Formats: sequence, structure tokens, C-alpha cells
Amino acid sequence: MATTGVTAPEGFSAAAVTAGIKPSGNPDMALVVNNGPRDDAAAVFTRNRVVAAPVKVTRAAVGDSRLRAVLFNAGNANACNGAQGDADAVEMQARAAEALGLSADSVAVCSTGLIGELMPMDKVRAGITDVAGQLGDHGSAAARAIMTTDTVPKEAHVMGSGWSVGGMAKGVGMMAPSLATMLVLITTDAIVPASVLDAALRSAAATTFNTLDIDGATSTNDTVIVMASGASGVEPNEDEFAAVLYEVCLDLMSQLQADAEGVTKRVSISVEGTSTDEQALNAARTIGRDSLVKCAMFGSDPNWGRVLAAVGMAEADMDPDNISVYFNGQAVCLASTGAPGAREVDLSGIDVDVRVDLGTGGQGRATVRTTDLSHAYVEINSAYST
Amino acid sequence: MATTGVTAPEGFSAAAVTAGIKPSGNPDMALVVNNGPRDDAAAVFTRNRVVAAPVKVTRAAVGDSRLRAVLFNAGNANACNGAQGDADAVEMQARAAEALGLSADSVAVCSTGLIGELMPMDKVRAGITDVAGQLGDHGSAAARAIMTTDTVPKEAHVMGSGWSVGGMAKGVGMMAPSLATMLVLITTDAIVPASVLDAALRSAAATTFNTLDIDGATSTNDTVIVMASGASGVEPNEDEFAAVLYEVCLDLMSQLQADAEGVTKRVSISVEGTSTDEQALNAARTIGRDSLVKCAMFGSDPNWGRVLAAVGMAEADMDPDNISVYFNGQAVCLASTGAPGAREVDLSGIDVDVRVDLGTGGQGRATVRTTDLSHAYVEINSAYST
Repeated sequence: MATTGVTAPEGFSAAAVTAGIKPSGNPDMALVVNNGPRDDAAAVFTRNRVVAAPVKVTRAAVGDSRLRAVLFNAGNANACNGAQGDADAVEMQARAAEALGLSADSVAVCSTGLIGELMPMDKVRAGITDVAGQLGDHGSAAARAIMTTDTVPKEAHVMGSGWSVGGMAKGVGMMAPSLATMLVLITTDAIVPASVLDAALRSAAATTFNTLDIDGATSTNDTVIVMASGASGVEPNEDEFAAVLYEVCLDLMSQLQADAEGVTKRVSISVEGTSTDEQALNAARTIGRDSLVKCAMFGSDPNWGRVLAAVGMAEADMDPDNISVYFNGQAVCLASTGAPGAREVDLSGIDVDVRVDLGTGGQGRATVRTTDLSHAYVEINSAYST
Repeated sequence: MATTGVTAPEGFSAAAVTAGIKPSGNPDMALVVNNGPRDDAAAVFTRNRVVAAPVKVTRAAVGDSRLRAVLFNAGNANACNGAQGDADAVEMQARAAEALGLSADSVAVCSTGLIGELMPMDKVRAGITDVAGQLGDHGSAAARAIMTTDTVPKEAHVMGSGWSVGGMAKGVGMMAPSLATMLVLITTDAIVPASVLDAALRSAAATTFNTLDIDGATSTNDTVIVMASGASGVEPNEDEFAAVLYEVCLDLMSQLQADAEGVTKRVSISVEGTSTDEQALNAARTIGRDSLVKCAMFGSDPNWGRVLAAVGMAEADMDPDNISVYFNGQAVCLASTGAPGAREVDLSGIDVDVRVDLGTGGQGRATVRTTDLSHAYVEINSAYST
């Protein structure tokens, strides 16, 4: 058993190979198989209306809340490839199922990489045969194979009582509400009926992955899947399971935030004092997406005026004359006016905490995680496809 | 008479001085006076709910559709300064009015610069006395004095038949719908009743200033004012006047776009094929604000997949399988699939034209102007206040 990742819980095997999809020659295909005895599964997907072919295939496959395997590739998103893209995703699913002796609809497919290039199917076909023949305790290799511009693989593992939850994730840019450009696979050996799995995943995603907003962009490929093997023989109660699943999601989310493209700061933005949690979330996202706020963070500049200018455009109840802002716990703006010493607040550390009270006395509150807007972000994203 | 700018039309005088508000020691106060005989005026303001003190003062002053003068300062926005900020703006208005022998409510005040610092009122008081004593044909000096990180002053002038419209503008960042971080003053010597002036300004602003979206941020201070002196003695018909006013607004808007912070590309984004103009505008703005699209533009990278990923999140009717994208007139994506040669489209020029058809057959259409996201943008905006 691995100590972390998707093969840390019992009942899962994984493999990774180099199929030649990535120009770098790094491993670029992975397969994770749930060996049972149970095959409960749940998933959440991108809200983008332009969805990649593998998302369509996987959404259909998980429709019956059962999955036995997930096939991954990195280097090509198989998005915006028309009917050929759809056919390729279906073929990938079918070939993986055949290699594993499973029915096609028990296999999910996840792709990440460049949009608008046809999958190199010759390489993919050979890769599927190859990866299906190397299954074992190779969760960490799988986590590495799904990386794109990620600088480190992301894995997690949290113990329950006699059972555990493991996971892996990739994603570095195009991260915004309704998931980041992220692929996440979570595994557990607990006995968890599919309906419980689904509710726990939606709840955990709402307060972890869906609060991460790196650049306001939402990918065509975002997918988070959870599979439960039941191999531990233990059935935790719903709250117990939900708590451990949340821990794993939070851990992976934090790793995604820390490895976001060009990040030099991890910024947490909390909003309170508005009427509902939803309005607080709107306000936090508006601040977290503001380029001027993000540039100020990059410069360690306590320019709270930009926070006020940003939040003034948010769809949220506020008292424009009674907004307060705190940087790293220190008041920089009270009643919409600068607080003494505001310009001297030290933001030179990696973590910056921004708290905003919109001053209505309402009980709504929410937190969003984002990063700064750095030269490296521009550098990485101005030279990707060519 | 000046050949361009706010003193090019008859009936206006202007002056600029160095009051010492800008650390650079450059001119930072300006005054423009309408010498009549008429004093019709109209204005549009920021939609931000956090508004600067001068916006409150000017909104009240123009409530009767009459203005005789506008006092400007650059270097301090007088925003988020609480009751003291409000009092300072009122005092600036009163002192300018007194120096000119006018009633206070016939004077508008516009400020631009850093948010959250109290106005240096000693310098401001001396500056008002100074600037009011130097009135003359100095529109170009006024245009220079209102600059912040602008690299060039922005002036315009368009002739009607026996009358004309002139203008000046500043604004380089924090530019988004409902005006940019912009201050604009437009003058005309035509006879234009205030109601006509108001309708023409709102119409022109909607298709010029309000379509400019540099970074999705909307300032606390945005103000566009038009004053009509009637000094030419000519009363054009409404359409004639509206057409010339539009020309001046378009000219100033183009200058603002070209001088936006860190710009290396001027990007025009047109959307069609959705049900209403408003939905087309939503879609164009969503694309124009997407950091990944803007980074790709900086890199001259024809990465059309990012346009599809961006527009898929827009609040607009679309057929996700029938979206087309054209870069500089060349199809790069048809029916949501890459077009032949798409990766070879040349985007190395300064101007990039992006056209997107959302494929519903609807008649809605809109255009937004934006820029790329460059290293210089990050550089300028990560070191502003400190």
C-alpha cells in the first residue's frame, strides 16, 4: 500500500506510462482501477457550456453512480475537436474497458492539455494497452503523469477508523468557480453508498475546489471523481465520511493553490457583513479576480483602496460608507476610510489574509482562495500553444 | 483658438498649474471655464457603489443641467476619505466658484490618483487661486495636468457646420464598463439644450467609453462631463450634434485604449449570433476580461481554444457545438472545431481583431475594446501606492 495518493486506500491499483502525447517525453497516460468489491462512484464537472469530449463521456458513464476505472491523459484536452473528438473519447473508453475486461460504461475518461488539437490516437491506443498491463501500487506515478504545467504532483491521504480516503489532483491555471482546470480523483476503501458519496462530494467541493479562483477562467475539462471500493469492510457514518473527504479535498485544493501558475502569494479573501453567504461569495470572488488587487499583492503593496474599488462593483449588499478591510488581521480601512498605519502593513510573506466587512450587519460570509498576478503568470500564459 | 482640445470650441478658457499634489512635480491642477452665453451641461458617472467625494459633489452640481466650470486635480483621487474627504471636495468647489465669481453649484470637481489619502488642502487652496488667475486658451496644458500614469495627453476636436466639439481625457488602468478610470471633459460652442446634450452623451458613451474594458476594474472616480457654451450661435439638429459628439468620444476612447497601462496590443472583440445586443455584450466582455486570452494576445499566440473556454462561461445564448472564431478576419474555429491553418494566423501586429459567432442565428451583436495582459501591466500595477 502506498502511503499517500489514490492507491493508499485498499482495493485500488494504478499505472502510468509515456504514450508520447506530451512533447516533453514525460509520462502522460495513467489508469486507476477500482478492484472492488464495491463500485460506488460520484463526480462533479465544469459548469462551462463548452465541454470537452471526455467530460461528455464521463458524465454519461457515471450516470448510474458506478465506475470501475478512470483513464487519464495529459498533453491534449480533446476539447473543441468536433465529432472526431467525441469519437476519440468514446474509443479511449472502449479500449480501456476492453483491456480491463470491463463494460465500457464503467470507465471514465479525463483529458487535460491544449484545446483544439486532435488526439494522436495511434499513440493513445498503444498507451492504453501499455498502461493496462502495468497496474499495481503506482498511484504516485499516476499523479505525476497527469501533470501539465504543474511543477509538483499533488497527492493526499487521510485516515478514518479502519478505512481511508486518498486522492490526486492536477491544475495550475484556468482555475475558477465550479472547479479549477483541474482533474481530481479521490479513492476510498470505505463502504459508502453512492448517494452518500454524491452528497459528500458536492458538499466538500463547494467549500474547497469551488472556492479556488486563480484567474477567473473555467476550463472545458474540469472533473472531480470519487470511487469507493468498500475493500476495508467498514461503513463509516455519513458525517464521519464527509469530514475525512473534506480533509482530502482541502489538502488537494491547498496544493493546487500553492502550485498555481506564476504564484508568489497565496491569498485568502474572506467577506462578511452582507445579507447571505452567496452575496459574500460574489463579493469575495469579485475582489479575488480583480487584476489591480492581484498586482498589488504581487508587489506586497497594502493598497486597500483597490479592494474598495473592486468590491464596490460586486453583486452584494453593502453599506458603501461602512466598509472595513483587514490585511493579515490589521485594520487598513474602517468605515470606508483609511486606518492609521495602513500603508505600513507588511505583506511581504507568502500568505496574505484579506478580510472585508461590508458593513450591513448581515450574517452572510464566504472565503475565496486566490493568488497574486505576477510576471511569471504572464510569461507562462503568453507562450503556451505555439 | 486652440486647434484641438477643450478650448478649441468658442466660449471656453482653461488653465493648468503645479499645486504640488503629484510627487513628480508635474502640473496637477486644471480649470476649464464655460464663458457662455449658455451653460447647458450633462454628465455620466461611475457605476461603482464606492464613489469618491468629488463624484458626489459633481453629481449634485450637474443635477440642474447647468455648469460653468470644472476643477480638476491629479495625484489624489479623494476617494475613501470619509467625512473629511467630502468636506474637502465641497471646499474645492466653493473656492473655485468664489475665485470665478460663480455660485458653488455651477462648478464641478474631478479628482484622479491614489485612493485613500487625504487631499493636501494647503496645496490645493493655493493651487485654486493660482489656476483661476491664469485662464486663457490653455486646453492642452489642462489635458496634460490631468494625466496620472498616462504617457501622453489625450485631446480631440471635430468640426460641425459653424460649430465644433472638443474634448480631453485621462485614463490608463482600472478601465471597465460604466466608464474607465477616466476623466473626460467635452466642450462645444453649439447651442444644445441640456436634454439633447444628456441624450447625446448617454448614447455616445454607451458605444465608446462603456465598451472599453482594459482590466475589468471600475474606478470610484469615473466622470464624463459635457458643457455647451452656445458661443457659435448655431443650433445643430439633434442627429447632427450626436454624430459629432460620437466622433469626439470615439477619438478619445481610442486614445485611452492605445495608452492603457502596459498595452502592446489593441484588441477589438466583436460577438454576433446571440439573441440580443446585451447578451452579445456580455459575451464580448467575458472574452475581453479573460486573463488567458489576454496573455495569449500578448504572446501573439492564436490560441482560439481559450476564446471558446472563456465564452462558454458567458451569460449569453449560444450553441456550444456551433461557435466560430475569426482572428484578423481568418477563420480559426468553425462549428466549435479548429479550422485548417488556425495555429499559423499572424497576430504579430499591434491591432488584433477577434470576431466570435455564437451560432444561434440570433441578431444580437456588440463590440468591446481591450488590450493584452503584458509584463508592463503587472510592473506598473504592482508598484503604485508605495
